[in-house]
Amino acid sequence: MAPENPSHPSENDLPYVLILKPPPSFVIFGDRFFNSTKFRFLKAYESPLPLAHFLLAHAQSVQAILSSGGAPVTADTIRLMPLLRLVVTTSQGLNHIDLSECRRRGIVVASAGTIYSADCADSVVALLIDVLRKVSAADRFVKQGLWSSQGEYPLGSKLGGKRVGIVGLGSIGSEVAKRLEAFGCSISYNSRKKKPFCSYPFYLNVRELAANCDALIICCALTDETHHLINKEVLSALGKDGVIVNIARGPIMDEKELVRCLVEGEIRGAGLDVFEHEPDVPNELFALDNVVMSPHNAVFTWESFEDLRKLVVGNLEAFFSNEPLLTPVGLDDQPHFSG
Amino acid sequence: MAPENPSHPSENDLPYVLILKPPPSFVIFGDRFFNSTKFRFLKAYESPLPLAHFLLAHAQSVQAILSSGGAPVTADTIRLMPLLRLVVTTSQGLNHIDLSECRRRGIVVASAGTIYSADCADSVVALLIDVLRKVSAADRFVKQGLWSSQGEYPLGSKLGGKRVGIVGLGSIGSEVAKRLEAFGCSISYNSRKKKPFCSYPFYLNVRELAANCDALIICCALTDETHHLINKEVLSALGKDGVIVNIARGPIMDEKELVRCLVEGEIRGAGLDVFEHEPDVPNELFALDNVVMSPHNAVFTWESFEDLRKLVVGNLEAFFSNEPLLTPVGLDDQPHFSG
Repeated sequence: MAPENPSHPSENDLPYVLILKPPPSFVIFGDRFFNSTKFRFLKAYESPLPLAHFLLAHAQSVQAILSSGGAPVTADTIRLMPLLRLVVTTSQGLNHIDLSECRRRGIVVASAGTIYSADCADSVVALLIDVLRKVSAADRFVKQGLWSSQGEYPLGSKLGGKRVGIVGLGSIGSEVAKRLEAFGCSISYNSRKKKPFCSYPFYLNVRELAANCDALIICCALTDETHHLINKEVLSALGKDGVIVNIARGPIMDEKELVRCLVEGEIRGAGLDVFEHEPDVPNELFALDNVVMSPHNAVFTWESFEDLRKLVVGNLEAFFSNEPLLTPVGLDDQPHFSG
Repeated sequence: MAPENPSHPSENDLPYVLILKPPPSFVIFGDRFFNSTKFRFLKAYESPLPLAHFLLAHAQSVQAILSSGGAPVTADTIRLMPLLRLVVTTSQGLNHIDLSECRRRGIVVASAGTIYSADCADSVVALLIDVLRKVSAADRFVKQGLWSSQGEYPLGSKLGGKRVGIVGLGSIGSEVAKRLEAFGCSISYNSRKKKPFCSYPFYLNVRELAANCDALIICCALTDETHHLINKEVLSALGKDGVIVNIARGPIMDEKELVRCLVEGEIRGAGLDVFEHEPDVPNELFALDNVVMSPHNAVFTWESFEDLRKLVVGNLEAFFSNEPLLTPVGLDDQPHFSG
């Protein structure tokens, strides 16, 4: 056998990237989706060992983790890998990673950046028009053959002129605003602080924002501060003509209270891509035509996944080549969004 | 009894406005929706007489008709009313009115103007995102409880970057273009002639437009020239990755051919608000997740109907007061759209 080309090290010499749980892209595209000639994957989920034992066995060989929303990178996990220097996540949100522990240990985090922002914003608009104009319900109506027997379909409500309040004016929130302005909506927002170069009215208080809008769009990050941020008071301020859309993270809303408001008609409707206990969805919502739901897929397009593939491989290859990461996360700053 | 106030003539002295068939707004709001102190309605559909007899009996008292899409105003009907001077229609489209006969007899036509354009454009965007991103299908998926059992949902396709071809760049088409530009789509169009102040690429030929776009949006008027304009050749030029949205009029498309293309996967999907034989919808479409349908309700919002009420009553009151109509139709010009 000819000796191996030294510029192409054998598979066995490649550095490891740990994966705790297969990311959604593996489920869809197979586990060669992020393949590279610069690293190989170490799949904890394929080992029969308990995770802690597995990590201890590989403690001296893991410098990088590829993580996703469904696989938390906790402080306990991090502590088992003294050489860990990089966490790459396939999500825009970072709420599944213990960022304080990363900061403390000088571990760098790379996110999916803003590649999902446009798709998320498109989903927001689709869900909002759908709730207002009963699009999914109309599709069911026609497909069940009811048009010829039942005649006129109930009226919807116009999107133009609606006052839209955006909770979290980060990259997704800004894309939502840009789109909804083209429909003639007026935009206002809530955020941790007022944006310096933004002319939209700012509300420091979410309840006040809700009281002054017809549709509330949740685009903020899930953090300790935003957990159950949308509670009974906010929903009550939004009122019975108000619509809510959440494409951020389920636990930002008090889901029990949301369900009660929807069932009892205390708000007009909701467009929901995320839930508190995914993939479990409150059954009470199944029969409601004024609730439009999707299975946390606001970012699930072919185009986004191709962008993601390039970004993940690019970040990992950059790391192992001692080059700057493509989308490093500034750990001193809170993220604006979970995607 | 006190004498009646001469400025408020009794109901019996008011001029008649003929209605052949109740417009959709009567079905929804009741038949006092367009009430006024300046005229009263003569409801042909409440009479047991055959229409021709009914019209002959009232030939000398009808100067105005209130018409809607479902009640054609044919040359034969017009000829039975020698005093007819005005046709007011609740639709933006005029294909149900014999405009040549109106022109010949000096009968003025007033339409719903552009009050529906924004709602129609909103429906276009909703249907287009829905087909690309599988919104209605995802709602069914979640509501049938399939998320927790079946897991990942199929990927959609990104709206941004799509080449959108608009057939008929009138008031609705322009509103569609404005919205889709905010999503990062590139716009081109087909029209009877190139618009002088429009920078979007123009295609004189619909087949060529279809060959150069990812989504074809039908917003043109139904006329003799546009009947079955979207035929086998156009659909074939659009191709298997192409999506079509029709919120104009069903007969602009060769529906049989459209159904075949959808069933056989020759185009990617369709968003349809209108059909050739409404309210009948081809059954073959009922099971297709890549087809999103609505019951010709692209203009059906509370806000549009309130605008319509003001406009219809305003046009009729203006006519009976010898004042200029609010939305007269220039009969020398072809309309751009049917809504």
